[in-house]
Amino acid sequence: METRITNGNVYKKACPTRLALDRIADKWTTLIIGMLENRPRRFSELKREIEGISQKMLTQTLRDLERDGLVTRTVYAQVPPRVEYQLTPLGQTLREPIAAIRHWAEVNINDIVRAQSVYDAQRPEGS
Amino acid sequence: METRITNGNVYKKACPTRLALDRIADKWTTLIIGMLENRPRRFSELKREIEGISQKMLTQTLRDLERDGLVTRTVYAQVPPRVEYQLTPLGQTLREPIAAIRHWAEVNINDIVRAQSVYDAQRPEGS
Repeated sequence: METRITNGNVYKKACPTRLALDRIADKWTTLIIGMLENRPRRFSELKREIEGISQKMLTQTLRDLERDGLVTRTVYAQVPPRVEYQLTPLGQTLREPIAAIRHWAEVNINDIVRAQSVYDAQRPEGS
Repeated sequence: METRITNGNVYKKACPTRLALDRIADKWTTLIIGMLENRPRRFSELKREIEGISQKMLTQTLRDLERDGLVTRTVYAQVPPRVEYQLTPLGQTLREPIAAIRHWAEVNINDIVRAQSVYDAQRPEGS
């Protein structure tokens, strides 16, 4: 028997939707899903292109995304084995909302940097 | 003189857009911006409605959002002082993309839970 969640509420800490939000409202998830938008990628490619992500964080985030049914991991039997990640149909549905977040950051960065300068100028160091 | 960022790339770890993404692709930011969608809110209201957020995390996230120019903090001189937070015009532009992420989590939670069960059933505990 399956329990269907019909009234998910991310504001409730015990609601499974909160856990889902925790996964997808995350910098590394946003960057990984963005990389997989158009085609499968190898682990080494993701590691190289997503600057600053550690091996451990990439491994863990990919495993979580696989467990959530957002990404599949395919191992090709060759030497050395080739491992590729790609979005599942469910993962594909995240492309658009996640691209919107990424795009927002790129478009509005100047306003943010300006606001930060103003804020910092009004407050003495460390206050 | 102002340096304008015209080719922001969130995949570069030294790019300011990466920092912006780090702020907005975050569970607590998503929940706070969602709370402020329609009207100003008091600190105590945010603390109560966003289950599981600590006083410290709420204080820090609100301060970061204020510094980024996304939220304003208004203190009303009364006893005890009333402190209200509301979205700036820049913060308003985040409403839609952030609501889309929240909505995605609420709509797709059953598929995620199902995928997790399948994944866990295929793997012995702790492997």
